[in-house]
Amino acid sequence: MTDHGPTGLGAFFAPRSIAVIGASNDPGRIGGRPVDFCKAAGFAGPIYPVNPTRDEVQGLKAWPDIESIPGEVDLAVMAVPSARAAETLEACGRKGVRAVVVFSAGFSEVGAEGAAEQARLLEIARRHGMRMLGPNCLGFYSAASGACATFSTGLEGGMPRPGRIGLITQSGAYGTHLLSMAKARRLGVAGWVSTGNEADVSVADCLDHMVNSDEVGAIGLYMEGVNDVETLIRALKRARELRKPVTIMKVGASEVGARAVQSHTASLAGSDASFQAVIEQFGAVRARTTEELFDCLYAATTGPMPTGDKLGILTVSGGAGVLMADAAEAFGLQVPPMPDASVAKLLERNPFAAPRNPVDITAHALNDFDLIPEYLAEMMRAGGYDAYAAFFTSWTGSPVLGPRLRKVLLETLKGSDRPFALIGLFDEEQAVSYETEGVLTFADPSRAVQSLATMARLARGFDAAAAQGELPDVGDPVIAATGMGEAAAKARLAQAGIPALPEEVAPTAADAARIAGGMGFPVVLKIVSPQIAHKTEVGGVALNLPDAASVEAEAARMLRDIPAKVPGAVIEGVLVSSMAGEGVELIVGTHRDPSMGPMVMVGLGGILAEVLKDVALARAPVTVAEALAMLSRLRGAPLLDGVRGRPGVDKHAVAEVIARLSVLAAANAGTIESIEINPLLARPDGAVALDALILPVKGADNG
Amino acid sequence: MTDHGPTGLGAFFAPRSIAVIGASNDPGRIGGRPVDFCKAAGFAGPIYPVNPTRDEVQGLKAWPDIESIPGEVDLAVMAVPSARAAETLEACGRKGVRAVVVFSAGFSEVGAEGAAEQARLLEIARRHGMRMLGPNCLGFYSAASGACATFSTGLEGGMPRPGRIGLITQSGAYGTHLLSMAKARRLGVAGWVSTGNEADVSVADCLDHMVNSDEVGAIGLYMEGVNDVETLIRALKRARELRKPVTIMKVGASEVGARAVQSHTASLAGSDASFQAVIEQFGAVRARTTEELFDCLYAATTGPMPTGDKLGILTVSGGAGVLMADAAEAFGLQVPPMPDASVAKLLERNPFAAPRNPVDITAHALNDFDLIPEYLAEMMRAGGYDAYAAFFTSWTGSPVLGPRLRKVLLETLKGSDRPFALIGLFDEEQAVSYETEGVLTFADPSRAVQSLATMARLARGFDAAAAQGELPDVGDPVIAATGMGEAAAKARLAQAGIPALPEEVAPTAADAARIAGGMGFPVVLKIVSPQIAHKTEVGGVALNLPDAASVEAEAARMLRDIPAKVPGAVIEGVLVSSMAGEGVELIVGTHRDPSMGPMVMVGLGGILAEVLKDVALARAPVTVAEALAMLSRLRGAPLLDGVRGRPGVDKHAVAEVIARLSVLAAANAGTIESIEINPLLARPDGAVALDALILPVKGADNG
Repeated sequence: MTDHGPTGLGAFFAPRSIAVIGASNDPGRIGGRPVDFCKAAGFAGPIYPVNPTRDEVQGLKAWPDIESIPGEVDLAVMAVPSARAAETLEACGRKGVRAVVVFSAGFSEVGAEGAAEQARLLEIARRHGMRMLGPNCLGFYSAASGACATFSTGLEGGMPRPGRIGLITQSGAYGTHLLSMAKARRLGVAGWVSTGNEADVSVADCLDHMVNSDEVGAIGLYMEGVNDVETLIRALKRARELRKPVTIMKVGASEVGARAVQSHTASLAGSDASFQAVIEQFGAVRARTTEELFDCLYAATTGPMPTGDKLGILTVSGGAGVLMADAAEAFGLQVPPMPDASVAKLLERNPFAAPRNPVDITAHALNDFDLIPEYLAEMMRAGGYDAYAAFFTSWTGSPVLGPRLRKVLLETLKGSDRPFALIGLFDEEQAVSYETEGVLTFADPSRAVQSLATMARLARGFDAAAAQGELPDVGDPVIAATGMGEAAAKARLAQAGIPALPEEVAPTAADAARIAGGMGFPVVLKIVSPQIAHKTEVGGVALNLPDAASVEAEAARMLRDIPAKVPGAVIEGVLVSSMAGEGVELIVGTHRDPSMGPMVMVGLGGILAEVLKDVALARAPVTVAEALAMLSRLRGAPLLDGVRGRPGVDKHAVAEVIARLSVLAAANAGTIESIEINPLLARPDGAVALDALILPVKGADNG
Repeated sequence: MTDHGPTGLGAFFAPRSIAVIGASNDPGRIGGRPVDFCKAAGFAGPIYPVNPTRDEVQGLKAWPDIESIPGEVDLAVMAVPSARAAETLEACGRKGVRAVVVFSAGFSEVGAEGAAEQARLLEIARRHGMRMLGPNCLGFYSAASGACATFSTGLEGGMPRPGRIGLITQSGAYGTHLLSMAKARRLGVAGWVSTGNEADVSVADCLDHMVNSDEVGAIGLYMEGVNDVETLIRALKRARELRKPVTIMKVGASEVGARAVQSHTASLAGSDASFQAVIEQFGAVRARTTEELFDCLYAATTGPMPTGDKLGILTVSGGAGVLMADAAEAFGLQVPPMPDASVAKLLERNPFAAPRNPVDITAHALNDFDLIPEYLAEMMRAGGYDAYAAFFTSWTGSPVLGPRLRKVLLETLKGSDRPFALIGLFDEEQAVSYETEGVLTFADPSRAVQSLATMARLARGFDAAAAQGELPDVGDPVIAATGMGEAAAKARLAQAGIPALPEEVAPTAADAARIAGGMGFPVVLKIVSPQIAHKTEVGGVALNLPDAASVEAEAARMLRDIPAKVPGAVIEGVLVSSMAGEGVELIVGTHRDPSMGPMVMVGLGGILAEVLKDVALARAPVTVAEALAMLSRLRGAPLLDGVRGRPGVDKHAVAEVIARLSVLAAANAGTIESIEINPLLARPDGAVALDALILPVKGADNG
């Protein structure tokens, strides 16, 4: 795909000419709709219907085949049976078409034979230097160019309101539902694209294109599987640089859902937790429901973005104020109080008010309408808020009060660069009259606050990128693709700057006593054998040995008894190490997610954490700053700061270990399956790996 | 209040006559609206406007005062200034009015003076045997009688569609918003009531009334504080018996929100977790947002209730199927597969289908419409599903497909008693055409599934009531209202059937040794002093003592050193007890919530649980079955079943302790502040209290 430049999707979204192969005179048929839609959307260039049986299609001159078209064809739409797809695509190639949309189904989604046919299409497209959308897709729609290379019923009955929202979907049917819902909500749409089987063009490619398109202000994705994580991450990084909001709805989080994804697409679902971690890491947000997706896109394209998470709440109902304060906490916004001087001033103005934050003017505003602009102005002047939610219930829609309210609100907000969500009841005209001025409108206060919170999360994600710093230097990052048990793994990790306790393998009991004497007592002994993973269960661990005699006795016992318990185990000796002391046990590990690539994980060790599954994930590599952010996401994070009088641990040292491990995982993503430090002992004065294991990718083991 | 029968609110909602005191000829004014609304709603009885300055009000004969009205007055609406409220209420009493709505504000919500005035109103009402709604309320609306004793703008522009939803709200302003939103969503409303300051009639009273009203099928509450927990619980229990859904939105969950509640009402917020626990315990559900509240009420009054949590998903889009399966898991529904024979049969019929569950017919249904009824019928026949969610995207609203789809769906569903949610795009007429047949309509698949899940949770709550069993017999439940330290508390709890280890207080070191010898070694020693709560910190605990000599030495040390460390402490001796052995440490306790009354709590002990706040709450008393359900709600519940090869613990024994403790807490709610067992050691063969503490209510201590 690299010969097409970074994305090369311009010929899709802004083509100079469009051919529809299999064009129908019936605007309701699959081959008729693109012609009908392009005309309706005002596509400015030539539209070439291709139909060997007709001279004219929907009032346009028809052509018997694509090669007989006299002019250049940028974009060809193939509404042909799958059996004719390959030959049609070849003809497109000969014609010099730059981009092709393949509606035809019956490829990788129906099994191995179809997948082979799909590979053939891809080969043809690549050979001719064409980009291909599909097969088995519903095509796309571009508001700016009027190109409607789609048969989606979502365009029936009229185009969406033009606007700055980009929608990208793997599912044609659900994508159509999204388009229809967007129209029903009268959202402004810049473009919509359905990627289907993604033989060539993936959702990630489309994201990359829309991120770099000035016409698109915010992007919503609907995904079932990630086929192209590198492009996805590149596009997300670029969106973050440009501070362009991206919200992603990905299905398949549940067990049944993941199974269903596999049964109806060629995509591997991968781990949902890894997906979630990766998109947040690169500044996007996850939408859990379709309404969340649209609320985010609506807020992002209607008002300004906030620059922080402090919410000012203005209300004429105490109850609604409390409700919004609750929602703010639930969705992660702060509700800091107004300064005392402001509270006093506002109380003097209206003694019935509760002007702390929520700032409740009360229904007295009905008697003294000036209270509204005065209170809002004081919040804007003195409150330091990053966003506002204001509840005026049915006043917004009242024939008398509504226009008065609108006038004072818009006058007061003039010049403000902070998002303002107005909660009330609106008809469409009233809503539009606010939205064109950058004011968000909602009926449900919780959704208003959630949307502002999502904007704040996006803004935080954009800001966080700047503070991430450099990756740690781990020396030579390449790891031999060999399974490594405790001693070898700890030694290799130590080379990368991950500390372990002083330790040495003793081949005999006498050596063990001598080595322990050199380290100082107490010490720990552990059996060393590649065949023994669970040392405790075979009596292969002895803790807190106080002197040389006990070390020699224990080592002798292990070397004598364990070979009998584990026949065939190759015993390399006993590992002598210093006692670790007190601290908090963590587990730090890396693994390869089938979709998302190398991931790094940290969690609290011990039984409870295992039960409670309290872990934080990120795609490798991460910087120390990112690793610190991972630690702060653990529910058990307060343990690291010390509880019940215990001292806090050196979180920076833990983050160093996470970051270094992640660099190794990323550098060896093709050959190393997992690296695990379990436990990592976090202490007030550092962190040490007490045990470690490195596993190669199956088949990559060269040891 | 008892002289009015269980609630005695009939005179409000179904009055034979209404007087509006302070009636205005202007239908837009507070005193004009009730008259205007009653006429618009078709109130059948006489409406008596009271206005000394007019002969006629809005076309009705006006009366100079209430006592001059010739006929009986069931309901009086007081739209008068607060200064005239008391005299007006006296006049109502003399007239023999049965129920009064007081709009007037300026009472308990404005401070102590207002509260005194409010108490005077209540005294007047009680003296005359009148029920009073308010003051500072917006009144109520009843669809069946057409009684509109309200000035809420929510009735402007027309009454809500009549239906079976009851709405109860403490906040007038947010209540108005709810009423307006209900109208905008064209929900069917049976009644709406705003309780304001709740001097007499509380939300709980209104709930009790609506639960017992045949006109009301499901009830939504908006609350800020609970003023009458006993009535609330009685009403919830009755709703559960009648299987009438109740959903409650309570604000003030956040810190800022709770503070704001206190600043604008007289209500104490209490603990949100206690509120949540109590309403779930008695079969209601919590709505977190206004839309959740309405979705629940919509589902409960439109279709049948499910009898289990197995969801069948029918779809023409694989993606939407996955999305709904994810939502099912997130909201707690099961998505069990179709039987293999059915899968085979459906695949034979349409090889492109994925008919496991989600049952994806795919867009082939467009070519072969019979697939839809056939697949649905097979799901109904063989799937064993309790509810259905079916995604047909924009087909539902299509002029051609829509009516065909409706016909086959309704024919197939004929006679079904399971809820069916149809997801697509509908105009109002299309939606109504389904809803009148009991089919729910949604645009957002997640909201459809969430609503069905809420119905299933309600149904589970109704069913659970039957399986709760009896409270345990704890003997005499009354506890002396005295603070009790470890030994006394454990002894008292042992009388109630809560086991502790064998133990005895030894006054001297020699006694300790002798007692330990009788018990068998090893033993534990703990200092006994009412003044010493944290024994470990003063060296007052010694574990695992192996023989008489070490017992005597440790006891002597404690009795010698601790008095010096804690001057003034009365040392009663040392407690000798058996070692507890291995198990899982829990904390079980009771406390009095300021709003919700006596509560019982269980959580996992230890530092991690303290950090992770993993506890389950219920209102005391609870049965053993309810206590077992509490245990299963702990995130760390798998620990009790045994992990990593550890044996499971005796959960029934733990539940016995919880239930017994809860019976004690309920029986002594007026005098005992808290009882705590920390830790309770849960073992494979039982549970024992290792430490306990009983604290009396401040001022109730008679010790």
